[in-house]
Formats: sequence, C-alpha cells, structure tokens
Amino acid sequence: MDVFIEPIGRLINEFSKLPGVGKKTAQRYAYRIINMTDAEAKEFAEAVISCKRKVRYCGVCGNFTEEEVCGICKQRQATAICVVKEPKDVIAMEKLHEFKGVYHVLHGVISPMDGVGPNDIRIKELLARINPDVKEVIMATNPDVEGEATAMYIARLLKPLGVNVTRLAHGIPVGGELEYTDEVTLSRAFSERKSI
Amino acid sequence: MDVFIEPIGRLINEFSKLPGVGKKTAQRYAYRIINMTDAEAKEFAEAVISCKRKVRYCGVCGNFTEEEVCGICKQRQATAICVVKEPKDVIAMEKLHEFKGVYHVLHGVISPMDGVGPNDIRIKELLARINPDVKEVIMATNPDVEGEATAMYIARLLKPLGVNVTRLAHGIPVGGELEYTDEVTLSRAFSERKSI
Repeated sequence: MDVFIEPIGRLINEFSKLPGVGKKTAQRYAYRIINMTDAEAKEFAEAVISCKRKVRYCGVCGNFTEEEVCGICKQRQATAICVVKEPKDVIAMEKLHEFKGVYHVLHGVISPMDGVGPNDIRIKELLARINPDVKEVIMATNPDVEGEATAMYIARLLKPLGVNVTRLAHGIPVGGELEYTDEVTLSRAFSERKSI
Repeated sequence: MDVFIEPIGRLINEFSKLPGVGKKTAQRYAYRIINMTDAEAKEFAEAVISCKRKVRYCGVCGNFTEEEVCGICKQRQATAICVVKEPKDVIAMEKLHEFKGVYHVLHGVISPMDGVGPNDIRIKELLARINPDVKEVIMATNPDVEGEATAMYIARLLKPLGVNVTRLAHGIPVGGELEYTDEVTLSRAFSERKSI
C-alpha cells in the first residue's frame, strides 16, 4: 500500500508541478485543501480553470487580457512603448504607476544557447507598431546577458526608423550597500554617475 | 484599473490561502497555471475537487480514507495502537515501514489556551477501542507542551485499563550536533542515556 491514498497522492503530484514546490510543500498544500470547506475547494478549482480559460494574450502588445485587446492598449496613447520580456514584467512596471505609455511583450529574449533567435520572439510585431506617433521605445528587458543582447539588437533595428530608444538605468539598488554590490553593477553605477 | 486582470487576481488570491504562500509566490504559481495546457490546468483543478470530495476520515481511527474504514484498520490487527495528533502524522510514521499496528488520530491536542479540552479531541473514541487484545498504546503526539500534556492525560486514563502505555523517545536527532542541540533535549538525552 502506498503511503498516500490515491486522491491525496494525485493532488500532491499536481501541486509539485508548481515552481519551487517539492513533495513536502505539496503535501502541506494538499492538507490545506482537505481542511477547506467544499465551497472553498470548489472556488479554488474554479479559479484555476477560469484563469486558464479566460486569460489570453493581447493582439497588440502580447500582455495578458480577457479580451482581444488589453485595457492598457485600449486606454493609452502609443507615444511611448516599453518593451519587456514577459507579461509579468508589465505588472512590475504598472505597480510603479509612473509609466503612462503602452507595452510590448516579447515573450522571450534572444538566446542562441537555448535556440531562441530574433524570429522566435515578437520583434516583427514591435517593428510593425512603430509609426511617427511613437516618440520613445524603452527597452526594459532584464539586465542579464540575454536581456542586454536583445535590447541592443532591437535598438539597432529601431534607430534607423528615427525613434528614440532608451534603456532602464543600471546602478546600486536603493537601500543596497556598496560593500555587497557586485563589481559590474558598481562599475556601471560609477561610470553613469550624475551631478547632484 | 487594477494591476492584475480579474481571473489572474482571483487565482492569486486563491493560491495565497495555501500555508506559507504570500502574494509573490501566489503570483508565480498563477503564471505557471497560465502557461499550462488546457488539459493540464483541468487535471490540476480536478485533483483539487476530487481530493476534497473523496477524502474523508476513517470511522475507526480518524485517518484519511476514501471508504468507511481505512486500509490500515482493515488489514492490521489492533494489538498496538499508535496515538497521533493529525492524519499527516500517520503518514510520517508509515514512511518508516516499522510500525505494524493501527493508529488513532486525535484530531488535535489538549490546549486550554486555545480552548481545546479533552472532550474536543477523539479521546472517548480511543478509550472505546481498548479491549484485551490491545497490548500497547504508543503516545506519538508532538514533543511540545500540548503534545506532552495530552500524552500524559491519556496515559492516566489508559493505565487503569491494564494497557501498556509508551511514549516515543526523546534525545539528540540522528545527524545532529551536541553544540546545536537545545538544552532541554540534551538534558533528556542525558537522563535517558542507555548502556551500549
């Protein structure tokens, strides 16, 4: 006899598919489900199904949406486009409540090591959005090797179109300490120092 | 506009109900669900529903089961009963593959601070199971204040019935270090030392 009865074992197995969840954590989650009321468990399951069913990608920017075109693309003017790797990066930017332009989600970055070339991410779609109204394209890919390379690659394509291409600033994180800042970051913070 | 669209926000909210899951982790889980295929998401949701619907408590021992009486109670002789706090403790014991008796799940421990008295946990049910065939009752509640008190309380009730009551041993965890063992544990390990 297995240690877990079938429905519990099966649920533990499903929870183990979530990122960073091992058997032990999955087990704790399963116990929590068992201790829920029927209504609560049903709500939980329905949220999973409904999220998967309702969420799709915006036809314009590639962000999560429930409709053809996302709320941001509908409501805002495309004078500035912020280019990000994934939909979750849109959420990170939106939490700032500072950027008032639109987004373009690449759904990946160029990574020859993983066999991802320029045609595998949404670069064509970005180029197609460039028109005289677009004054600035902000490259907000992650500050890692692939993110930097992708930003540079796209910038080279965009500049001939006469659009202003910018990149998020690098430097010491606010609240960080010099001592614990890695050398590359510190060197960037130094070379990009500003007069105050 | 909220940062998350409704179905994602709702799923994040549901995941946040799991133990130890904050907004950030819940967000990662939700993204994983969105990246699943429809079939995978459906399987996930069904595992939740089916676990909640199928799992109930054994009428004899109080352990998780899909039937009236659990597999352990059906197959094994009740010559030794291992008393634990929760169904998950049964699983911890079963993983040893050493104990061949049956279990009794209290579904809690006596804790006056939380308003849990002897009548709020399955002590009556345990007493009803004691008969001349039962040779030993192993108190395997947690080694914390409530667990110890509950073990002592139950032992006092059982001894007049002529049953042998034992308690899991305390001591230094295997692989642990003396230096990092707390004083109470070390003192117990010392006073319960054995000749080798």
